[in-house]
Amino acid sequence: MRLVALAAGLMTALPALADDLPSWRDTEAKARIIEFVETVTDPDNADYVTPARRVAVFDNDGTLWAEQPVYFQLLFALDRLEQMAEADPSIANTAALQAAAARDMQTLMEGGEEALIEVVNATHTGMTVEAFQDAVADWLKVARHPDTGLPFDRMTYQPMVELLRYLRDEGFTTYIVSGGGLHFMRVFAEEAYGIPPNQVLGTYGETEYRMGEAAPEIVKTTGLSFLDDKAGKPVNIERVLGRRPILAGGNSDGDFQMIEWTTAGDGARLGLIVHHTDAEREYAYDRESHVGRLVDGLDKGPDMGWLIVDMAKDWERIYTGQK
Amino acid sequence: MRLVALAAGLMTALPALADDLPSWRDTEAKARIIEFVETVTDPDNADYVTPARRVAVFDNDGTLWAEQPVYFQLLFALDRLEQMAEADPSIANTAALQAAAARDMQTLMEGGEEALIEVVNATHTGMTVEAFQDAVADWLKVARHPDTGLPFDRMTYQPMVELLRYLRDEGFTTYIVSGGGLHFMRVFAEEAYGIPPNQVLGTYGETEYRMGEAAPEIVKTTGLSFLDDKAGKPVNIERVLGRRPILAGGNSDGDFQMIEWTTAGDGARLGLIVHHTDAEREYAYDRESHVGRLVDGLDKGPDMGWLIVDMAKDWERIYTGQK
Repeated sequence: MRLVALAAGLMTALPALADDLPSWRDTEAKARIIEFVETVTDPDNADYVTPARRVAVFDNDGTLWAEQPVYFQLLFALDRLEQMAEADPSIANTAALQAAAARDMQTLMEGGEEALIEVVNATHTGMTVEAFQDAVADWLKVARHPDTGLPFDRMTYQPMVELLRYLRDEGFTTYIVSGGGLHFMRVFAEEAYGIPPNQVLGTYGETEYRMGEAAPEIVKTTGLSFLDDKAGKPVNIERVLGRRPILAGGNSDGDFQMIEWTTAGDGARLGLIVHHTDAEREYAYDRESHVGRLVDGLDKGPDMGWLIVDMAKDWERIYTGQK
Repeated sequence: MRLVALAAGLMTALPALADDLPSWRDTEAKARIIEFVETVTDPDNADYVTPARRVAVFDNDGTLWAEQPVYFQLLFALDRLEQMAEADPSIANTAALQAAAARDMQTLMEGGEEALIEVVNATHTGMTVEAFQDAVADWLKVARHPDTGLPFDRMTYQPMVELLRYLRDEGFTTYIVSGGGLHFMRVFAEEAYGIPPNQVLGTYGETEYRMGEAAPEIVKTTGLSFLDDKAGKPVNIERVLGRRPILAGGNSDGDFQMIEWTTAGDGARLGLIVHHTDAEREYAYDRESHVGRLVDGLDKGPDMGWLIVDMAKDWERIYTGQK
């Protein structure tokens, strides 16, 4: 036993020769990622970047976890509305809310953006940030994905979780910059990705500081404050981080400007697009999809040197929750 | 020589017994700060706080550096306007801008908030964030304070700079949360306080991502986006940090809600007000001042356990730039 413990101790003391990205197959994609990281972390390289400037940003829906058949946050909103309407049917007091509570998706979608805003307002406002986040945490414990049966926070992509960890091990700071809800994502981002609340950027509604019954509180009120999508992404990064990232990853045209701004900087840069090509193990979609539509990234990305990751070809494993 | 080097090496290897706050006199204020820090960093204490949650937030104007005779950022705006009007007199095309460019403070102040907004728009917008920050950096190199003759970034408070360093040495993350301009403060915060750009929160105007002549850029456009003052401070902290601080320091009623929210949390908390009591070495002002007005903090703070720092009594030294 003692010898075994000693041997184990020696093993862990050896330099890490193990593969940092075991779920990435040995394709060009993996080689390019490693080459980029080795370039910016090598003090003797002309493109060396100090740790403080090793900023990596990633979209969430479709980049770090799945987004089909619809954004998971919408499924949360519908489940929550159903639950609220069961407790108090008067809550579903418009045609859109009635359709949503009854899972009549066709009527809901016909209502367009306005109908969705009604659903978001009914389910995401009128409570403290804390109470909202408790509701999200409760939902994540019991909700299951309609296709895979997995908990939603186990539908994160194993290769991307490995990439985040590898980057941090190499001195990067990793951020989420997503169109998804800021308060929604913060509930699982730390456990799922190792990304703490202050490194999560997202879309947010208005919030209000006020004196509650016993103590001050911050309440989610009606109204969108910031949409973290398209040109909003570089704007938000500049506001919150104050530094241009050197690596940006996304999967849809909502990420185009973020990757464009990142890769337009001086020195070594990496832009990365996760291309959903795997109808068998995940989903296959791009130009015509109602979520995660990807046209510009495919048409212009390669000419700008962006790495297009082919899920079917480049990834050995998909979900963290897979057996 | 070798023995001297060895002795020096031994000295630095010894545990740090030196005073972390040498510019704080041995008064109750210093004792309370140290007691708080020792409480939350002691794993055996019931009020122990993990490093990830050791978040400390500080106002800037009047808390970390001086703010008299007016906010330094206004002096920058006036200098910049004067310079711009010299190069192109047509810029001063309103009564308020003409008054500002001519340093006719009385006329400018009579114009109220609208006149000030005109000055900010003329001097803080219509250029990239980068170009604006270069202008601030250039100004800091040559501008001197009207009373002390010091560069503005040497009018930071030595005791507060020591406090920031002490907190970081004890595992805290230190943030600025100020009504001052986000882009303005980021220019000097890292060198002056050791606070990197992503730990600076402030007031910001609208910015726009757009394709420039050669590359994409982020431009400061007209219009206020967020006022980081009063109830806006806890709202901004919640948005950007996602965690409630355990220490908050300010000097005016604009900081009241930030300190209130911080100290209303569970466990050990420290709220701190810098009270400007030293007419001889700095300035003495509170209830009637046109900048840094302090009424609620004095009337209600002590009952909520806030520490009121008496500059004249508690500080041995004031400015970092003092001989």
